[in-house]
Amino acid sequence: MNIISTKDFSPENLGYFFDKTSEMRRLDNGTIDERRELASRHIGRQMYSLFYEPSTRTRSSFGLAAAKLGIGKDQTENAKEFSSAAKGETLEDTIQMFNNYHVDALVIRHPETGAAARAAAVAADHMAIINAGDGKGEHPTQALLDSYTIYEHFGRLNDLSVTIGGDLRQGRTARSLARLLALYPGNDVTFVSTPSFRIADDIKQELTQAGTSFRESDNVHDSVKQADVVYWTRLQKERFDPGESMQDEEFVIDQNVLDVMNPSAIIMHPLPRVGEITTDVDRDPRALYFRQAGNGLYARMALLDYLMARG
Amino acid sequence: MNIISTKDFSPENLGYFFDKTSEMRRLDNGTIDERRELASRHIGRQMYSLFYEPSTRTRSSFGLAAAKLGIGKDQTENAKEFSSAAKGETLEDTIQMFNNYHVDALVIRHPETGAAARAAAVAADHMAIINAGDGKGEHPTQALLDSYTIYEHFGRLNDLSVTIGGDLRQGRTARSLARLLALYPGNDVTFVSTPSFRIADDIKQELTQAGTSFRESDNVHDSVKQADVVYWTRLQKERFDPGESMQDEEFVIDQNVLDVMNPSAIIMHPLPRVGEITTDVDRDPRALYFRQAGNGLYARMALLDYLMARG
Amino acid sequence: MNIISTKDFSPENLGYFFDKTSEMRRLDNGTIDERRELASRHIGRQMYSLFYEPSTRTRSSFGLAAAKLGIGKDQTENAKEFSSAAKGETLEDTIQMFNNYHVDALVIRHPETGAAARAAAVAADHMAIINAGDGKGEHPTQALLDSYTIYEHFGRLNDLSVTIGGDLRQGRTARSLARLLALYPGNDVTFVSTPSFRIADDIKQELTQAGTSFRESDNVHDSVKQADVVYWTRLQKERFDPGESMQDEEFVIDQNVLDVMNPSAIIMHPLPRVGEITTDVDRDPRALYFRQAGNGLYARMALLDYLMARG
Repeated sequence: MNIISTKDFSPENLGYFFDKTSEMRRLDNGTIDERRELASRHIGRQMYSLFYEPSTRTRSSFGLAAAKLGIGKDQTENAKEFSSAAKGETLEDTIQMFNNYHVDALVIRHPETGAAARAAAVAADHMAIINAGDGKGEHPTQALLDSYTIYEHFGRLNDLSVTIGGDLRQGRTARSLARLLALYPGNDVTFVSTPSFRIADDIKQELTQAGTSFRESDNVHDSVKQADVVYWTRLQKERFDPGESMQDEEFVIDQNVLDVMNPSAIIMHPLPRVGEITTDVDRDPRALYFRQAGNGLYARMALLDYLMARG
Repeated sequence: MNIISTKDFSPENLGYFFDKTSEMRRLDNGTIDERRELASRHIGRQMYSLFYEPSTRTRSSFGLAAAKLGIGKDQTENAKEFSSAAKGETLEDTIQMFNNYHVDALVIRHPETGAAARAAAVAADHMAIINAGDGKGEHPTQALLDSYTIYEHFGRLNDLSVTIGGDLRQGRTARSLARLLALYPGNDVTFVSTPSFRIADDIKQELTQAGTSFRESDNVHDSVKQADVVYWTRLQKERFDPGESMQDEEFVIDQNVLDVMNPSAIIMHPLPRVGEITTDVDRDPRALYFRQAGNGLYARMALLDYLMARG
Repeated sequence: MNIISTKDFSPENLGYFFDKTSEMRRLDNGTIDERRELASRHIGRQMYSLFYEPSTRTRSSFGLAAAKLGIGKDQTENAKEFSSAAKGETLEDTIQMFNNYHVDALVIRHPETGAAARAAAVAADHMAIINAGDGKGEHPTQALLDSYTIYEHFGRLNDLSVTIGGDLRQGRTARSLARLLALYPGNDVTFVSTPSFRIADDIKQELTQAGTSFRESDNVHDSVKQADVVYWTRLQKERFDPGESMQDEEFVIDQNVLDVMNPSAIIMHPLPRVGEITTDVDRDPRALYFRQAGNGLYARMALLDYLMARG
């Protein structure tokens, strides 16, 4: 099994991975004997992390997940500059090399959309390819941890009112979350952004086909009032169109926004943030983004635990 | 417990860490069964090395210390360039992420003075912060290994004549060693440098308050004659003032200096050296700087062994 | 024992390493219990990878070899930029530091010819130096995996017709393979290249002295017809002389070349390739270059298994 796209997930396998993620969290926070048992579980298996682009969160959480499960690992932080890629080797040749190194899982981050699928196409059966982000394409383990965080809190992924805000045009986490919500009945999605950062038509079509209700707005206060989940994303200013100016201050979660939010809501963010949630919000019990980051570790442990138990 | 500053050390806990450092050296140089037992001791624990600045010695000795103790680990060599920091994430947010990754120890090197203390302020109780150098601030594990090296040789840290030479103005190892010597009675310190590289007033005040005698000199030969310990540091030429020219050749430990040194003295250096100790000195039995480097490994193993045995 | 040069290998120790390489491949492709036993074999030993130059293949295969054998490890990807070397530390001082870190094996890649031998000259007895490539000098583990690949297929390293093509002037793999073939009787070597990329005189002299027959050619088709082994290398275009233009298309292995090759021949390449073997050749059963890459892992495991079992 490869993990290439959000489309690799279904309500059935998500249910399995959610239970596994909870188990990983419980054991890792258990006694030292439980942690020791966990760290002996997959001795003899190996993972390689092949990162062609910068990453702290994703790379370190995969690295720690492997360490916590006893999986041998090696990695490159900057495959683009320090590797055979610089000499002109194709991704396909690199993958065939790792096939022959008998690696059980290859975690890949690559700047080109579709790179993980290209890797999977030439990967040997014994080597699972895990997409850790490919360009503007997919980042399925982020989608897994995001949906787990909602599930962990509410006990369900259906019949929820979800507001997704910030850069929806290019943010792959916003797109992926909308897709996953469309797999479950009764969800209601509000997209909030300025006109030039609106969610793309393909996602709107998917939601329509799935029968998931949604609307678009440019008013933060109105959009968060009824939400069970407020999912906020970073404004990627390097991608602004020339001459365009986004009123940042209108897209910030601060005490004023907290005041109008549902008391039982949760606030999520894929991190890093650069000002779009003020730090005083961190003390609010509804702020779940750091726990969400931790769920990234446990969701990746769940995936690896599943993949390593095969064969 | 966090290890942020030389001030975290006292004669009491230094005694404990010195014994532990000796134990680590003994076991690591013991039989393969002893090394194997050591490498199984902390299975189930994890450490992360977050380095925002270049380092060979410190980073590799922490990495090997973890490996030798069975601690799972992951790291980034260049957090500044390849991480969320490049996207504008604050150090505090990065630390809160590692809190949620349930890491037992976070080793941090950062260019800004005070960064490790800022990290400790937001670190969870279960995660020990170890300062591996923050700007011109502190480098406490260097101070630990330096004082251990003296203790290992002389069996005490009191009633010693210590000459500290080279760049005393900016060298944090020289400053830290002077501080630690002030914790013990009867030490006598000679600082030797050119006028523009003199030790700063804050250290002189600390020594005065502690009742530790000291003097300043610009004559190497005179300063080393009576010393039990000659602690030499690198001249950081990139920090010379414009128009200033240091007579390097006067601040070199070579055969001429050896000839006037006490036969029972020891020569230390935090390394790397770039000519301020000539290589023919390496063969002199008083040259302890490579053993000192090895003590860096064992002192860090001692710290980690202590921190990992908690809770 | 250090592994510095192809000259460290003899028919006697190659026979031992070939058997060990086969054992490593068998166990790593065996049951999970066999892999788990392997990954527990050398717990308590440590390896450090000190890479001053980019590498994917060599560095990751050493890293995975250590993981698969239970050897603790740490590494630097880019020692040149991120280490004490940038501050002016000599290689000799760096090696003496690792002596004192009590590392069992130090794997070194360095841009300067002779660097590994310089490292070995100051390395402690307990620390094996493994040359992972030093400038235009040596890359002995590549020579080991190349010769193993031939041995694995033919069951011998003697009485073979071997054609070596591409950049023979600067390619250290081509030079090393020729050297190893001269250790065995009855081999016949054809060097095929354009005039400016011809094999150097020192290799020709070695072959002559060993009584190994050889010839030079610039015709690919003629040269591969009778070969048991076709060993192809990358044209390092950055090294072309000014005004020189190599007819690349004449030095490409493609279907036309396959058509004239011996049906029982094998095609090898040290990788990466950048067009000098077309991808349709991959499907031909004679194409062994990806298996050869995998043999790089197993040959390095064999070396490490041998070195770690000492003392």
